[in-house]
Amino acid sequence: MKRTILVAGTMAFDTLETPFGKREKILGGSANFFSLAASNFTKVELSSILGSDFPKEHIEYMNSRGIGSSNTEWVDGKSFHWVARYEGCMNEAETLETHLNILPDYHPTFDDKAKKCEILFLANFHPEKQLHAIKEAQGTKLVICDTINFWIQNNFDALKEVLKRTNILVINENEVRMISKELNIMTAAKKVLSMGPSTLIVKRGEYGSFVCRKDEIFYVPAYPLQTVIDPTGAGDTFAGGFTGYLATSKDYNSFKEIKKAMLYGSVTASFTVEGFGIERIKTATMSEIQKRYDEMLKMISL
Amino acid sequence: MKRTILVAGTMAFDTLETPFGKREKILGGSANFFSLAASNFTKVELSSILGSDFPKEHIEYMNSRGIGSSNTEWVDGKSFHWVARYEGCMNEAETLETHLNILPDYHPTFDDKAKKCEILFLANFHPEKQLHAIKEAQGTKLVICDTINFWIQNNFDALKEVLKRTNILVINENEVRMISKELNIMTAAKKVLSMGPSTLIVKRGEYGSFVCRKDEIFYVPAYPLQTVIDPTGAGDTFAGGFTGYLATSKDYNSFKEIKKAMLYGSVTASFTVEGFGIERIKTATMSEIQKRYDEMLKMISL
Repeated sequence: MKRTILVAGTMAFDTLETPFGKREKILGGSANFFSLAASNFTKVELSSILGSDFPKEHIEYMNSRGIGSSNTEWVDGKSFHWVARYEGCMNEAETLETHLNILPDYHPTFDDKAKKCEILFLANFHPEKQLHAIKEAQGTKLVICDTINFWIQNNFDALKEVLKRTNILVINENEVRMISKELNIMTAAKKVLSMGPSTLIVKRGEYGSFVCRKDEIFYVPAYPLQTVIDPTGAGDTFAGGFTGYLATSKDYNSFKEIKKAMLYGSVTASFTVEGFGIERIKTATMSEIQKRYDEMLKMISL
Repeated sequence: MKRTILVAGTMAFDTLETPFGKREKILGGSANFFSLAASNFTKVELSSILGSDFPKEHIEYMNSRGIGSSNTEWVDGKSFHWVARYEGCMNEAETLETHLNILPDYHPTFDDKAKKCEILFLANFHPEKQLHAIKEAQGTKLVICDTINFWIQNNFDALKEVLKRTNILVINENEVRMISKELNIMTAAKKVLSMGPSTLIVKRGEYGSFVCRKDEIFYVPAYPLQTVIDPTGAGDTFAGGFTGYLATSKDYNSFKEIKKAMLYGSVTASFTVEGFGIERIKTATMSEIQKRYDEMLKMISL
């Protein structure tokens, strides 16, 4: 079974500095990372907004990987541009500049084919627009959603409405604490689960992640790497590998399948951080992903 | 099979403040935590130094749990006293005062029975004394060792000699980075493994731990708790549960047994943090430990 995933999110330019170097205006954006990761598993339909400076060849490349772009709008103006720096263990990005540019003009509307997609992934963007996207995607049976601290602080009411309509929430541990106003991560997770999502994935950077439901929990480490070049996009490619695997699963509600998807998410993300921007995740093959999956399974098995 | 473990380390008074309250001069010390944890699995022989202010009843209580104290020396003066505070997520203790008191007079010497113990655990103390203890314990076949940042900074040469004679090193991730002078944790771990120990356990606080050898790695989460009162002694009781299980194992060199021991270490530590000082680990029973072990196994199994 191979369901098409509808993803709504940003396509961007990133200017990044890590201990391993600096890159100016390389391709990034949550929907970009997510789609490239997920396209190893299944077809993806991309909803986003692009400025006139965004390279057409990249969209053509995405098309060649089975990522449809008919729900992607080109507008006059500059694309979204993020400038950030990572230091030391690179556990956190320090945002230096955020140039929204054409991003405020993004209003997710889907064509009939997109509306029929069974799985919707909402990358991080304005919760009111996420809510609109959920209403637009009428054929959706599984809503997987991300968000960040900015919306928790500034648009919490809209975000709460999104949570009510979300099946699987994929956020990092600080966001879990912010939403719940609880320090203890288990207490925080339980509170977030009471706000809507039946499944919560808590990302913990180099410490891996866990997924929990009311009475179930499963832990996955990050795939161990001796070379981490740039963590940008790790969370989005985690979500891409996770959602990608679920889209091929007979029963995406089964916790057993969710657990496998967690492993696929984790190993898919491990390729992203091995290069700047999308350069390494572009070259990762399904057999490479499967090899790391098998290794990872050994690392958590008695 | 039940081997007796010889442990050398501190018995102390701890004055602690956490978000959950303050306790003055409660019982602590690495050998104390370790012994109580390990005594759930097997007999322990304790080597330590005690001031005249240390409560005799506690040593009698330890004896009643199968912890021998004939290698423990009472001296005139005050016992070692540590004053510390934990804030927020309690990931790190802030040391406020360290009163060594009689601790510098500790010179580990063992009686004939102790010298015959097959397993030696060296809790954190001066590396020159750890080295002396290894030479004293002539019957030892398995040396498991801990250390802290202070010795890495101030007695690195002696510590390197200890590492050469250590089979299993149990330290936290910052210590791994300090010893190796490497930021990437996998690179750091490989470098530490090249310095002597064939097995390295890396403790990561609330993120659990991993154990690695040259070509093997295994990850264990921390047992999820909604109530963490005081993290003091978590690392020592982890080591106690880990070493305790290994002492009962047919083949403590097998990685499969090491992996099981990691799980026992992790769940044993989970009791410690549920109360101040030793109050909760004292009441933990083997059936409670086994119950959490079984739960934990499910949390990492597909």
